[in-house]
Amino acid sequence: AILKATELVFICTPIAAIRSTVEQLIPHLDPATVLTDVGSVKAPVVEAIAPLWANFVGGHPMAGKAESGIEVAQLNLFAHKPYVLTPIATTPPAAVEIVEKIARSLESNIYHCSPHEHDRAVSWISHLPVMVSSSLIAACMSETNSEVLKLAQQLASSGFRDTSRVGGGNTELGVMMARYNRQELLRSLQQYRLHIEEITNLIERENWPALEQHFQSTHSARAKFVPD
Amino acid sequence: AILKATELVFICTPIAAIRSTVEQLIPHLDPATVLTDVGSVKAPVVEAIAPLWANFVGGHPMAGKAESGIEVAQLNLFAHKPYVLTPIATTPPAAVEIVEKIARSLESNIYHCSPHEHDRAVSWISHLPVMVSSSLIAACMSETNSEVLKLAQQLASSGFRDTSRVGGGNTELGVMMARYNRQELLRSLQQYRLHIEEITNLIERENWPALEQHFQSTHSARAKFVPD
Repeated sequence: AILKATELVFICTPIAAIRSTVEQLIPHLDPATVLTDVGSVKAPVVEAIAPLWANFVGGHPMAGKAESGIEVAQLNLFAHKPYVLTPIATTPPAAVEIVEKIARSLESNIYHCSPHEHDRAVSWISHLPVMVSSSLIAACMSETNSEVLKLAQQLASSGFRDTSRVGGGNTELGVMMARYNRQELLRSLQQYRLHIEEITNLIERENWPALEQHFQSTHSARAKFVPD
Repeated sequence: AILKATELVFICTPIAAIRSTVEQLIPHLDPATVLTDVGSVKAPVVEAIAPLWANFVGGHPMAGKAESGIEVAQLNLFAHKPYVLTPIATTPPAAVEIVEKIARSLESNIYHCSPHEHDRAVSWISHLPVMVSSSLIAACMSETNSEVLKLAQQLASSGFRDTSRVGGGNTELGVMMARYNRQELLRSLQQYRLHIEEITNLIERENWPALEQHFQSTHSARAKFVPD
């Protein structure tokens, strides 16, 4: 009964449970209530929920930690972090405004885009890095000379630490990204493989000027993603 | 003349200049003087210098910063960091002992291995990560939808920041790794490509249990390289 008077409900389950959670909620909700979620993939969620509930706004607050639980709660976790909203043509602007009000009060940086654009963008900067990083760890473990493997483990430092971090992280999250953003991730992986092939070819052909050019362009490009 | 009384000389030039520097030094050195270098690839250096100077010990102190110059000098930079020595069969033990004495005084963690083992180990944990990370940036830049590219740049955060760091770093260093550790790096890249292919296949075939297994194994493996 208390749900009848509720203006906004956040669905904060794993992506796989969003649909069934909404279905269980619906009988208890007033039609004016706005639903939103916090899933890190948007197209499958919006496709599943928008037909069930008119006042649904897909959302992705991009802040969080490796740890979970109330012990690691943090004040201002969302401040100055992206909060992506993915309304579609049928989403009522008033519903979007209600979610935005909360995001503004958290001091998040608000972005609007289509669910598809969201999924394609996070595929590049979040999901592909996990696959790349995890494959790096797997490749290192493939060293068959046990002396060399032991030495590699002893000598690994900040470069390896950073590059391997997201690939050695949360197992379920990695599977979830692949499962729900499969098509975009495969597209990103395909492009990525071409670039690994290209860099390999440059090294094989000992084309050092072209390799230097490559590193110069990735050096400048990185600043557009993560300005220091 | 002052060099005649010198016990130990550190060659701290780029790898490409080590040989000519040693050739210029030789006429001024006493035969008892020990030479060592700090190059980050060892086989080509040891192969070039060992025949020229009996008392040569290949070395690689693995500490440093992105910045250079006296302004960023740091006390205890080498403390608790690896210092790899790569003596070969013909290296006099007394020469190794003299370099070790310095490394011990810096509180470095000293490792001994063959030049080849060194190059193979650093190929995995230092040189391959640079290629992987740089290719990640290049792949992201290949996004042809300018709205999505802009969104990706806006949404990139700590995961992308860490995974792209070494690939957006020093351009000359990247070329140097590829140039002087070419054979080992190509071997590492070849293994890496197989792992990227495998992860792509798992996602294509929607084999989620195997993908979870893969992430579990890279999660545990990482701790053997960089214990937290």
